[in-house]
Amino acid sequence: MLTLRCAHFVVKEPMVIGHECAGIIEEVGSEVKTLVPGDRVALEPGISCWRCDHCKEGRYNLCPDMKFFATPPVHGSLANQVVHPADLCFKLPDNVSLEEGAMCEPLSVGVHACRRANVGPETNVLVMGAGPIGLVTMLAARAFGAPRIVIVDVDDHRLSVAKDLGADDIVKVSTDMKDIPEEVVLIQKAMATEIDVSFDCAGFNKTMSTALNATRSGGKVCLVGMGHNEMTVPLTPAAAREVDVIGIFRYKNTWPLCLEFLRSGKIDVKPLITHRFGFSQKEVEDAFETSARGGNAIKVMFNL
Amino acid sequence: MLTLRCAHFVVKEPMVIGHECAGIIEEVGSEVKTLVPGDRVALEPGISCWRCDHCKEGRYNLCPDMKFFATPPVHGSLANQVVHPADLCFKLPDNVSLEEGAMCEPLSVGVHACRRANVGPETNVLVMGAGPIGLVTMLAARAFGAPRIVIVDVDDHRLSVAKDLGADDIVKVSTDMKDIPEEVVLIQKAMATEIDVSFDCAGFNKTMSTALNATRSGGKVCLVGMGHNEMTVPLTPAAAREVDVIGIFRYKNTWPLCLEFLRSGKIDVKPLITHRFGFSQKEVEDAFETSARGGNAIKVMFNL
Amino acid sequence: MLTLRCAHFVVKEPMVIGHECAGIIEEVGSEVKTLVPGDRVALEPGISCWRCDHCKEGRYNLCPDMKFFATPPVHGSLANQVVHPADLCFKLPDNVSLEEGAMCEPLSVGVHACRRANVGPETNVLVMGAGPIGLVTMLAARAFGAPRIVIVDVDDHRLSVAKDLGADDIVKVSTDMKDIPEEVVLIQKAMATEIDVSFDCAGFNKTMSTALNATRSGGKVCLVGMGHNEMTVPLTPAAAREVDVIGIFRYKNTWPLCLEFLRSGKIDVKPLITHRFGFSQKEVEDAFETSARGGNAIKVMFNL
Amino acid sequence: MLTLRCAHFVVKEPMVIGHECAGIIEEVGSEVKTLVPGDRVALEPGISCWRCDHCKEGRYNLCPDMKFFATPPVHGSLANQVVHPADLCFKLPDNVSLEEGAMCEPLSVGVHACRRANVGPETNVLVMGAGPIGLVTMLAARAFGAPRIVIVDVDDHRLSVAKDLGADDIVKVSTDMKDIPEEVVLIQKAMATEIDVSFDCAGFNKTMSTALNATRSGGKVCLVGMGHNEMTVPLTPAAAREVDVIGIFRYKNTWPLCLEFLRSGKIDVKPLITHRFGFSQKEVEDAFETSARGGNAIKVMFNL
Repeated sequence: MLTLRCAHFVVKEPMVIGHECAGIIEEVGSEVKTLVPGDRVALEPGISCWRCDHCKEGRYNLCPDMKFFATPPVHGSLANQVVHPADLCFKLPDNVSLEEGAMCEPLSVGVHACRRANVGPETNVLVMGAGPIGLVTMLAARAFGAPRIVIVDVDDHRLSVAKDLGADDIVKVSTDMKDIPEEVVLIQKAMATEIDVSFDCAGFNKTMSTALNATRSGGKVCLVGMGHNEMTVPLTPAAAREVDVIGIFRYKNTWPLCLEFLRSGKIDVKPLITHRFGFSQKEVEDAFETSARGGNAIKVMFNL
Repeated sequence: MLTLRCAHFVVKEPMVIGHECAGIIEEVGSEVKTLVPGDRVALEPGISCWRCDHCKEGRYNLCPDMKFFATPPVHGSLANQVVHPADLCFKLPDNVSLEEGAMCEPLSVGVHACRRANVGPETNVLVMGAGPIGLVTMLAARAFGAPRIVIVDVDDHRLSVAKDLGADDIVKVSTDMKDIPEEVVLIQKAMATEIDVSFDCAGFNKTMSTALNATRSGGKVCLVGMGHNEMTVPLTPAAAREVDVIGIFRYKNTWPLCLEFLRSGKIDVKPLITHRFGFSQKEVEDAFETSARGGNAIKVMFNL
Repeated sequence: MLTLRCAHFVVKEPMVIGHECAGIIEEVGSEVKTLVPGDRVALEPGISCWRCDHCKEGRYNLCPDMKFFATPPVHGSLANQVVHPADLCFKLPDNVSLEEGAMCEPLSVGVHACRRANVGPETNVLVMGAGPIGLVTMLAARAFGAPRIVIVDVDDHRLSVAKDLGADDIVKVSTDMKDIPEEVVLIQKAMATEIDVSFDCAGFNKTMSTALNATRSGGKVCLVGMGHNEMTVPLTPAAAREVDVIGIFRYKNTWPLCLEFLRSGKIDVKPLITHRFGFSQKEVEDAFETSARGGNAIKVMFNL
Repeated sequence: MLTLRCAHFVVKEPMVIGHECAGIIEEVGSEVKTLVPGDRVALEPGISCWRCDHCKEGRYNLCPDMKFFATPPVHGSLANQVVHPADLCFKLPDNVSLEEGAMCEPLSVGVHACRRANVGPETNVLVMGAGPIGLVTMLAARAFGAPRIVIVDVDDHRLSVAKDLGADDIVKVSTDMKDIPEEVVLIQKAMATEIDVSFDCAGFNKTMSTALNATRSGGKVCLVGMGHNEMTVPLTPAAAREVDVIGIFRYKNTWPLCLEFLRSGKIDVKPLITHRFGFSQKEVEDAFETSARGGNAIKVMFNL
């Protein structure tokens, strides 16, 4: 028997997946004042309890009773229709497509990370990892005003995508821990100024060690990726330079800002959508194969 | 040949040690307006540059050009006389002794940790390690208003000292990593409410892992002790609950607050001074032996 | 015709008043897990929408759709029975009486003010006005660790009550604007150190002007009282010393902290309850007369 | 006899004025490592003591012992040569002119205001007053990411300049207090979303009253301009919506950020420099006349 799990969530019976979506309102409840059928909306996927301390203190993403698309036992949003609370459906500006609306979800991870790490026009940013999460974090950091962003990866293609999407500089690294000291030097040289905040969007011993060593005294390392569970990293020397390690879990209150970034053009997520599929059995299978194969796929989108 | 070092500071020639001290002003410079000979003062040991970004932004403890008592090549304060800037000499309130004044230094570590971790009357605190730093951190947390403090150690005597000094509860643990899960349960039971902030005042894989696992979602772990350099810890699951890891380096602007705590009686450091010695060759040697021997020694004080 | 209003809330038909209360649970809804009949609870009086930006960002006290006891058209809690959401009913610790539980409401004003003004063990506090709100603010500031609190009023009796309740010093002032300069000198002398935060618990031109002038550069004045609507005050010179003016509206997430303060004895509200009445027609009338008469009445309590 | 004063600073003898300047290094002290003759630099005009609490806590702009260009009795910088500490001389990037360098000073006011009011990509900004300070505040707010900025003035020309410099919308108002309610409606309509932060860059009863009424609950009004000393404003209703009033005094640590804004082109100050003069007796007189006359003069620049 195979046990499927995502973190500590175990899948016990067949379940619809998917939590990045946008769509068109078909019907609204009698008390809904903010939406009408036909409205194009992006969906925030988590419904929190609004009773616990986390919810009441404005950190509803930490709610222990969260009901979240595709987190067992809650079905996901890869469906023709979903029922969802009106306050989690955000109207798309006229110039934002449904596809872009669906991208609010991954973008929210980057936005939440930038908020927690307090990125602004004085924050020079290092991004470890140029996968989808690294890219949205880079785009978010730019939109928050980061003057200089360096992105690091082991893969030339990913780095060239990152460069095209606006990285100020890119650094190719190995997977060998022994290379950390010299790679830190290369990264700091590429930054050409102090690294105020590093986002580890991979989450491996090596990426985290590099980030901890490269970040300036008093800076922050935000751990976004989740490669390793237990980590072996030089935490003490970093702590002794008051480099704090900031964690993130999902996001909160990010949809309005994401939509504003998309509306204003501060962020363009269209280049991240590399593949599109319809919703037939065949196309769905192709889509998952495309995504699993990796290659040049960043985000694979279904259109009904 | 033996190389002596403290962190990355290497001792290359004979050096006076010591950085916890108080004394009586003998002479002041012509521009000093705040002090006169005869004033009893506690000394903050670090002289920062006031030119760098850290200094200008109020984090002078991170100044890369800090001149600090007993940090090579600067001599320490275990001397009959020292010359020190007036703004780093803080007048003792009438009811605070020189001995207590000298205790401002270790107490400052706890105060700085509590400030960085934002301890207040809503912060339930776990302290890992009941050595001198664990004890001053506990005392500081209490003075910052922490309603409940649980302290953890491997040693019965230390724990009983911590209990006498005001810990709400104590938990004895092993040094075996395998015991972490059940010890976390014991610690959380001893706290009887959520752990908002944990101070790891030991700095080992086990203490840090315990702290990361025991702290509530959205809480903080402040790494104070420096047992291990590289750490193997469950950083990712902690980050995924937005448990941040806060580092500290020394302290800043802590002397006035420490003296106020001592003056008002919110903190009593006298029980921490377990041994006293004079300043003769013989007594100095005895003092260092006492300190090295450990046993029930917490702080060993020299009186001129 | 007489129009009754509280701020912009107009009373249009007969309404039950009251929003400071505690009681015993008679019955719970089927989904309530946290309470059982017989539990003694204090009630937080406002039900917010949990849909608006303020609610989602943790400032639910600013919710525009708040339903609040005795704020038209919602009836108040001066009744034998009320129906209220379980998450707004907070269990009393064993050593906290129903009377003390009801005092969580006024105390919450002080607690919220101290939180917004960031009072801690380094905050020397000036309180303008020794009425009920001034007194609870003083008690809260002490519980948040304020080392020194000076309280100011025009009335000797109030000041002596404040002194008995723990003010470090009291200053009697006039109602004449011309006296401000010399009164500021007296107040600063009574404080004997810089005033970090002032709470104006009266809210008149004179009290606010005094607070703005007396507070140190970089400090805060928190406007709690609501005597004058439009104010004539020296705002510019205060702003030019970066003295910020902080406003407060009710409170949020304060009941658990208030109950902890009462449980631990950090705050004793019993001396504020000066009169007690039963719930007969006659006693209710007497109670309101007592309260309206002022005199030495601070809080007038009904007991069923 | 005429008494000249700027705020509480009284001019007692002839004094060189000027505090906005940039120049070329002629000579450096023996300990200066960061500059060499020939370097083009912008000068931060204030020398703080680095001994007082404000300096040590990172708010050196509030230093009571500040020595500041052209603040009596310190001479200003309108001179062929000045002696100034190296850490207050900031090297200009290659693409930033001396003129632009001199503009760091007024721009710093806007930058400091935006920092204190915490402007970011989620902050919709109202600016009251389109004079030089209003304009630099608008430019700074844009550079900090403000998505929408509305600027208000009584003068058509100023408003059209503001529009050209990037205001999203402009609102012309009167000087009559009676018009406030309807003007608030116009301003809120022009913003088309909630006003998160208002900067009052005029500092009159009317501008401040408008700002206090127009800003959303939980927002901030930052008082930058200094028109009136004593103000008559609806402070209580604003405070009761938790609209805080934030003051500013000069700036701190702003030069590096201003230079980065100029280097990157996020801010273009060149349109603010409307007039240029040489440094002869005749030209200096013309310059002051031009500036005093107002008209379309924004910033009048001297070039040696």
